[in-house]
Amino acid sequence: MDMNFVIIGGDAAGMSAASRAKRLDHNLNVTVFEKSMDVSYSACGMPYNIANPDREIDDLVVRRAEVFKEKQGIDLMTGHRVGQIDRHNRWVSGIKSDGKKFKFPYDKLLIATGALPIIPEIPGADLAGVMALKSLDDGRRIKAYLKEKSARSVVIVGMGYIGMEMCEAFRERDMGVSMISMDFLPGFHETIAGMVRRELESNGVMLHVRHQASQIVKAGEILNILFADHGLNADMVLMAIGVTPNSSMAADAGLALGPKKSIAVNRHLQTSDENIFAAGDCSDAFHVVTGQKTWIPLALRANRAGWAVADNVCGKPTEISPVAGTSVFKVFDLQVARTGLSAAEATQFGFEPAEVVIESRSRAHAHPGGSSIWVYMAGDKKSGRLLGVQMVGKEGVAHRINAPAVALHNRMTVDEFSRTDLAYAPPFGPVWDPMLTAANQLLKAL
Amino acid sequence: MDMNFVIIGGDAAGMSAASRAKRLDHNLNVTVFEKSMDVSYSACGMPYNIANPDREIDDLVVRRAEVFKEKQGIDLMTGHRVGQIDRHNRWVSGIKSDGKKFKFPYDKLLIATGALPIIPEIPGADLAGVMALKSLDDGRRIKAYLKEKSARSVVIVGMGYIGMEMCEAFRERDMGVSMISMDFLPGFHETIAGMVRRELESNGVMLHVRHQASQIVKAGEILNILFADHGLNADMVLMAIGVTPNSSMAADAGLALGPKKSIAVNRHLQTSDENIFAAGDCSDAFHVVTGQKTWIPLALRANRAGWAVADNVCGKPTEISPVAGTSVFKVFDLQVARTGLSAAEATQFGFEPAEVVIESRSRAHAHPGGSSIWVYMAGDKKSGRLLGVQMVGKEGVAHRINAPAVALHNRMTVDEFSRTDLAYAPPFGPVWDPMLTAANQLLKAL
Repeated sequence: MDMNFVIIGGDAAGMSAASRAKRLDHNLNVTVFEKSMDVSYSACGMPYNIANPDREIDDLVVRRAEVFKEKQGIDLMTGHRVGQIDRHNRWVSGIKSDGKKFKFPYDKLLIATGALPIIPEIPGADLAGVMALKSLDDGRRIKAYLKEKSARSVVIVGMGYIGMEMCEAFRERDMGVSMISMDFLPGFHETIAGMVRRELESNGVMLHVRHQASQIVKAGEILNILFADHGLNADMVLMAIGVTPNSSMAADAGLALGPKKSIAVNRHLQTSDENIFAAGDCSDAFHVVTGQKTWIPLALRANRAGWAVADNVCGKPTEISPVAGTSVFKVFDLQVARTGLSAAEATQFGFEPAEVVIESRSRAHAHPGGSSIWVYMAGDKKSGRLLGVQMVGKEGVAHRINAPAVALHNRMTVDEFSRTDLAYAPPFGPVWDPMLTAANQLLKAL
Repeated sequence: MDMNFVIIGGDAAGMSAASRAKRLDHNLNVTVFEKSMDVSYSACGMPYNIANPDREIDDLVVRRAEVFKEKQGIDLMTGHRVGQIDRHNRWVSGIKSDGKKFKFPYDKLLIATGALPIIPEIPGADLAGVMALKSLDDGRRIKAYLKEKSARSVVIVGMGYIGMEMCEAFRERDMGVSMISMDFLPGFHETIAGMVRRELESNGVMLHVRHQASQIVKAGEILNILFADHGLNADMVLMAIGVTPNSSMAADAGLALGPKKSIAVNRHLQTSDENIFAAGDCSDAFHVVTGQKTWIPLALRANRAGWAVADNVCGKPTEISPVAGTSVFKVFDLQVARTGLSAAEATQFGFEPAEVVIESRSRAHAHPGGSSIWVYMAGDKKSGRLLGVQMVGKEGVAHRINAPAVALHNRMTVDEFSRTDLAYAPPFGPVWDPMLTAANQLLKAL
């Protein structure tokens, strides 16, 4: 009898694993249970889609369910919400969208349940018009709501990068936008964050930092968000505080958990049960700088982990490489990127960090059209190692961050990184790339 | 008596060395002999400056001679052409711009004489209007000539990256541009080069590849460039075949030479005479991939080598890191970049290369405004090592190339590079960065 490879969750990690497993071993029975009707879509593309009322949210679908079923031979069961894993008997069970129950046996199981948006437990968080953005259905609901209510204003609770991207989306639709949060761009150095703050404000966004919403009340069609002694009126509230691993089912099944209650996996993506794998935003990973477990929900590592699970299930033992947490986002005219650790984060892992922030230019001296680029860099005084880099600027930031990311994978010292041979031409930067200038400065502090 | 540190050549390497040496040891006598009147200017910025008749070429000057003299205490002697090095008596001698001779003793000497444009030995190469671009004076002459003659057309001999940049500059000035050369973008893979070729042609540039000029004749005010059975008329000819190390004085002094007759230096930038250093475009370097000597004239390594010479002269022994040959240029709407070796180059050094070219996108699926990016990648079948990367596209190429450059410094395998954690957001690329897609493809061929 052929082996049953069962996957819970038809998003990036789940569908990557399913596709690759079927490609590696066509006789394998690959069954995916997805609670929604959507699989394989660009979740990260949602803010840009929501920005444009004329675009359909379904434009974000990369591959339709039929293609997975008919062309790839994957048993893709949409509208199937798995609720329980029975490790002893090796089956999963749950409820279909029509209310009927189902039960299915597995030999190897992949949990790829992703993450869930964090909704603060305040009165009124469940009111109509208080929304979050995680799934394509969320995006669909937000677009429908904006249209139906002709919403003109929004309060975004949270100032992380999804909040930033959505802020731009709402401004594109000419809506008034307020943001409220205790922290502005948590994890970023204050100079980098300060540039983003200035960009938001010059685009008409109202920021209420060091505050948190205590209650939301409805006054007619209007939502009133209460904080401190103030209240903000808006047509809509977006909860964008962050996400949390969707790991409760794994916890209920007795699987070990890692940082932030993500599902703990080894380098082969196996959970504490060797027949059960976890991949994507629900699972933890090794950090390239600390060597320790971390939880960083990002799309590339989800896709990559899905592939690695398929390899391991299909008898091609594969270890997943550690993550650097390299990420980038766009907010209005700014590109903001980071990789590795900030000094504050590094201190928690026993490093003795030094840090610098430098301002340089996006184009060479005397080359027209340049703008400022700020580079933050942290290094370890004990080992000399590069710990992390952050950057902000109008151009040339998004891809620049990949060079220090590769450096982190190689455990380079700041000195070694400062000696790398990087590209130069006047339209793209100074002779000494801003990252090299930062490294040269940081060397003096190490 | 204080030590005499003498530098021949006041360009990138020479002035970097002078400034740093004086900063490290203020009592050191630092004397720079520069044959022209210009020091410290952005040579790479010249094409962009020439593109604009309203800009002064002197806008490219980064630091004026007076600053070096008065603020930094450097004895900067412009208009001093050194012609001879007497290693036995340790002095240099030459001729000043007023025709008088000079002679000066050194304890440590740096040769930073740069490179010279290659002028093919064909009849008419010395005619007025046949020009090359290397020094600021060249740029000055070209701008003056274009203005004085109201030049409407140019033939560029050579199709390397300076030819490309100048081609765009002339088109900016609405001039008709023809190019003629045996090779189109030597060193680049044909697919990458093909994209550049298409870009040039769609910008109205006439290309005559696989031809070479045999003679230039003057007919009234017009130059006629003869090749095969044809002739091209133009107001001006730009010789942009390439450059060659300006090493004849070093050779005359009996110093050892390296690849392409560049001055051979060890990792401390010492020539075969331990009291004489060489840095910048006149000297060779170790290649990060082959470990062997190479000659790659690029601005960053010149600046960096200048610094390292100063360190070594001032008693701070410093080894220069190897070069990867990372470079980028812009031509019309395209960015073209490379690092490391092509498969063809790698074969000459005993590698068994495999290569791929992939087409990917500059932005994510369904994100508006994206365009194609082509990535060429070469790896070694024996060791699995990454050997080199080339890229072309309208956006996101210039800084992307730095990630594989850092990978080359770390001697990463293609497999290791394919596992690096790179940034993703829909405005800046697909989830799988085009470089990762190329690496994944290349792995199949290794």
